[in-house]
Amino acid sequence: MKIHGQYYRTIWTDADGVSIHVIDQTKLPHAFETVPLTSSQTVAEAIVTMVVRGAPLIGATAAYGYAMAMREDSSDANVDAAYQFLFETRPTAVNLRWALDDLKARLAVLSPAERFAAAWQRAGQICDEDVAICEAIGKAGLPLIETAQKPGKTVNILTHCNAGWLACVDWGTALAPIYMAHDAGIAVHVWVDETRPRNQGASLTAYELGAHGVPHTVIPDNTGGHLMQHGMVDLCIVGTDRTTARGDVCNKIGTYLKALAAHANNVPFYVALPHTTIDWTIEDGVREIPIEERSAREVTHMTGRLPDGTLATVDIMAPGSKALNYAFDVTPAHLVTALVTDRGVCAATAEGLKGLFPERG
Amino acid sequence: MKIHGQYYRTIWTDADGVSIHVIDQTKLPHAFETVPLTSSQTVAEAIVTMVVRGAPLIGATAAYGYAMAMREDSSDANVDAAYQFLFETRPTAVNLRWALDDLKARLAVLSPAERFAAAWQRAGQICDEDVAICEAIGKAGLPLIETAQKPGKTVNILTHCNAGWLACVDWGTALAPIYMAHDAGIAVHVWVDETRPRNQGASLTAYELGAHGVPHTVIPDNTGGHLMQHGMVDLCIVGTDRTTARGDVCNKIGTYLKALAAHANNVPFYVALPHTTIDWTIEDGVREIPIEERSAREVTHMTGRLPDGTLATVDIMAPGSKALNYAFDVTPAHLVTALVTDRGVCAATAEGLKGLFPERG
Repeated sequence: MKIHGQYYRTIWTDADGVSIHVIDQTKLPHAFETVPLTSSQTVAEAIVTMVVRGAPLIGATAAYGYAMAMREDSSDANVDAAYQFLFETRPTAVNLRWALDDLKARLAVLSPAERFAAAWQRAGQICDEDVAICEAIGKAGLPLIETAQKPGKTVNILTHCNAGWLACVDWGTALAPIYMAHDAGIAVHVWVDETRPRNQGASLTAYELGAHGVPHTVIPDNTGGHLMQHGMVDLCIVGTDRTTARGDVCNKIGTYLKALAAHANNVPFYVALPHTTIDWTIEDGVREIPIEERSAREVTHMTGRLPDGTLATVDIMAPGSKALNYAFDVTPAHLVTALVTDRGVCAATAEGLKGLFPERG
Repeated sequence: MKIHGQYYRTIWTDADGVSIHVIDQTKLPHAFETVPLTSSQTVAEAIVTMVVRGAPLIGATAAYGYAMAMREDSSDANVDAAYQFLFETRPTAVNLRWALDDLKARLAVLSPAERFAAAWQRAGQICDEDVAICEAIGKAGLPLIETAQKPGKTVNILTHCNAGWLACVDWGTALAPIYMAHDAGIAVHVWVDETRPRNQGASLTAYELGAHGVPHTVIPDNTGGHLMQHGMVDLCIVGTDRTTARGDVCNKIGTYLKALAAHANNVPFYVALPHTTIDWTIEDGVREIPIEERSAREVTHMTGRLPDGTLATVDIMAPGSKALNYAFDVTPAHLVTALVTDRGVCAATAEGLKGLFPERG
């Protein structure tokens, strides 16, 4: 998408054919900087330090890191060693593992001399495939926004966390239909949940919408219920990290509260997802999905700009009080109006999902 | 209540009989300091700068300020002028106006020589009456916590914002039953909603619970739904700024989302209130109560301690993105399990309220 008029992806190859650039997401939203990644080591560091974040982008970046490792040492031993080295950068990231597994299977049947070129090409395909998936989600979701449009009125859309292009290679998931609607000339305005404790809404979602020119307003996470009660939200659309076979969705903590408010006020609540996030092995998300507990420091400390523009981190908590930080919650399928996938839109039910994915039926 | 073992009110008279001390709430939770207020001018400044905050405490402080004004100049002209001067410190504060009206009516029928002593005595009564009201709320609510107790288990209570003693003279409203339960030896643990954007939970509620020794954990406002979904909350209890004749409650933004989650998960949702916050003239809180919009800066900026202990304010927002800050929302009565008042507990219905307040029937 665009950053102040110029088109970007979150990751791109350099003219030298052996290195890449990424947007340094640790600097966002306070500064826009790009950094070169020239070796498997620098790629690993970029993943560990969250210079790149978001499941699809981590997978794509790791794929290029694996390719770079093959340029550095294409031996059989390094096919294993580089896999392990890159896997350990974010061992819980599903897309990271998927990308590394995909490459490793291909590298295993190639000679050392063929490995770098094949891995580099495949990394590029992984990026393009992610863009195609997100674009398909956007096209599937666009009619839902068109339907919500009333003559002469702006469509007000609430989103939570960052399911935008900065987490992917381009387009994003939940934000893809919004970008398409905006680019098609539909008047949209996005209510951006701040998304405590890590503020991905106030920082990343607000940044990318603003940079592309999409009208938006940041609200505290507490606000959405009031807005829905007063007819100020036409639809909600959020992402998901994991979707069960019956349509329960596990997404950033607080999603469930917005789904409850949408249900109580007859506001459509859509969840956008690439089909790769569907976990066909589980049904009951509330009981079966373990919820990651992250550092309390994410709750107690906030980073921002001082008046002179430098960054500082402050402790906002009563001294001595402890904090708890669950990263995700599960929204039961009955609160989800529809799932918006790269295969199209379906009901958040086992039957709905099987209709789009008959090979799973 | 206690601050690290020593009993305090939020406001108390000095031995000189003409001045008072208050806790400087602008320094909380980062430092505990008390300040003397020795004139109507210093009282007014303390209200304007939010050294004192919370409706009951503002009223009590203004009453002492009015008394001090009578010591400075007890003329008929100053009965009017001091009223106006103090009223303008926080013109939307209902308790401020109530306290000033109460005193003015008394002063009007007294000679100048009698005015200071009468006002000083009445200010003390206003403080004591507030303590008595909060204590009555605590006694009414205590059985609800006792009922929720299971043998050998801690009672987990979720609260939002600060409806504690720091907003009153002592006890608080929503926190009064919790303090009584804790002091009675019942094992309680409080989930404290951070309460963005102003963080009254993470700062004030966490501070006062911690200082009194009540176990508690601060959580992002996004977390409560997940906790209730997983049986980790036995009951919710919050305050209210305004309660309608049928039991709708207007409280800090985000209260409505927690009430929805409580309702969906069969968790009792109690609202504590002094009878003075009931607005008998309105029924439908969602339609009839205008919601105050406060400065976006409260959303975009956060204040806390730097590593060296000094305070700093940082801008956490994507540059150029705007923010919206509704201060309150309305929870419809059907989501409220019961109202906990200084007259006892009742259903959140017109009939329930009339049962406790037959003089309004």
